[in-house]
Amino acid sequence: MAENEIYQYSIISALMDGVGSSGLPISDLVAHGDHGLGTFRNMAGEMIVLDGRVFQMKSDGTVTAVDSSPGALDPADGLPVVAPFAMLTRFRPTASRAACRPRSKAELAGLVSDLLPPGSRNLYAAFRLRGTMASVTVRTADGQRFPGEPLRALGGRQVTHVFEREEGGTLFGFRSPAFSHGVSVAGDHMHFISADRRRGGHVLALDVGAEGAGVEVEVAPISRVHMELPVGDEQFDAAELALDSAGIKAVEG
Amino acid sequence: MAENEIYQYSIISALMDGVGSSGLPISDLVAHGDHGLGTFRNMAGEMIVLDGRVFQMKSDGTVTAVDSSPGALDPADGLPVVAPFAMLTRFRPTASRAACRPRSKAELAGLVSDLLPPGSRNLYAAFRLRGTMASVTVRTADGQRFPGEPLRALGGRQVTHVFEREEGGTLFGFRSPAFSHGVSVAGDHMHFISADRRRGGHVLALDVGAEGAGVEVEVAPISRVHMELPVGDEQFDAAELALDSAGIKAVEG
Repeated sequence: MAENEIYQYSIISALMDGVGSSGLPISDLVAHGDHGLGTFRNMAGEMIVLDGRVFQMKSDGTVTAVDSSPGALDPADGLPVVAPFAMLTRFRPTASRAACRPRSKAELAGLVSDLLPPGSRNLYAAFRLRGTMASVTVRTADGQRFPGEPLRALGGRQVTHVFEREEGGTLFGFRSPAFSHGVSVAGDHMHFISADRRRGGHVLALDVGAEGAGVEVEVAPISRVHMELPVGDEQFDAAELALDSAGIKAVEG
Repeated sequence: MAENEIYQYSIISALMDGVGSSGLPISDLVAHGDHGLGTFRNMAGEMIVLDGRVFQMKSDGTVTAVDSSPGALDPADGLPVVAPFAMLTRFRPTASRAACRPRSKAELAGLVSDLLPPGSRNLYAAFRLRGTMASVTVRTADGQRFPGEPLRALGGRQVTHVFEREEGGTLFGFRSPAFSHGVSVAGDHMHFISADRRRGGHVLALDVGAEGAGVEVEVAPISRVHMELPVGDEQFDAAELALDSAGIKAVEG
């Protein structure tokens, strides 16, 4: 896959419907990109992929570097590590700005919009933040308690953490156009991991703070999306996949 | 692109919003597949691609074999031939049935479902009919009367033709899952062209008839979709792209 294109496995509505028992082997996934987001079997935590390395950020606060070599097994259950949903890209920023101080996700959204070229309104995009952040609030999904449990149910018991004075962490996200809602997560969807790769999750709130060096924001517009749907996945085949806008907003917003 | 994957340029909601002044050059389009559907600049008629050959079926009843070589110009306006929307695949049927006699699009839908492998309910598919059909009803869009005219307005003045006792014609279509609505056309979307390539259009109704040899129905399930969004297209950038389910059903159903 060329640079700054998206590879997506499955659709977000499948997660909403609880399709989480199987997925794409991680070794196949990382062949499609070096940066991205997703989740793991049974929605056990949040995935972030940075520079080709895959991390699993769980609700118990642990972060694991995932072995993405072919045939690798999950030490937790002895099964192959798979992603029931993921979006990856070969991220090569086309614009960046140093010393940014977004005080919120909304301000970050404005910065990303400013950095994207004209004509990007109805396209996808990828963005990355690196630097010191005064506060990052994340959630981590605690995993399905039974096969097929809908993501919305997990959202009701998600674990939230607030990280303060994070130095050198990385936030990576995708912006997806409104028309993609239900397939992707419309709007900005971002995960964070700390510099020491020991803390992280799905970003709920962000404040870089008014002081300090700020963060570097890097962006790339994306106009090509390669979607692969699960084949031979009984849960996916049986899922209704109806659009649950409120549900997606509740757990992915 | 591998066999039985979909390449899609732009989204159907963009057509609904009237994004038709520019598009992908046809020479680029045919590099992505040998069978498909779409439309042309200003939505002037219906596109069908069979065995790598592109045909433009206009509302005045004419059918033109389109020159898909690089740099080819449209004799009608001297501009490059482009597709503002198209879906193509390298169609290699994985199942087929001879002597089928669907009396309606609904019966054809049932046949396609029967021929697809188990587990295809939430996937895309492509299908082709060849043989003798007692009756095929088509419409052909008569083109935008001004830049940005929405497809729904064109639908109000579409030209309908009924072809009877069609021998040796070809119908090609895509099935898109419900969740793709607004991006693709959810459900079955099919175009027809006669054996002599002189009649055709977007299929509104179909009756193979109870007599005669019937038709061969061929299908292939599709789980990978490659979408390319228009870049540098001011109309696309400005479009709202809100889902207009009733509108899509009215003009593409």
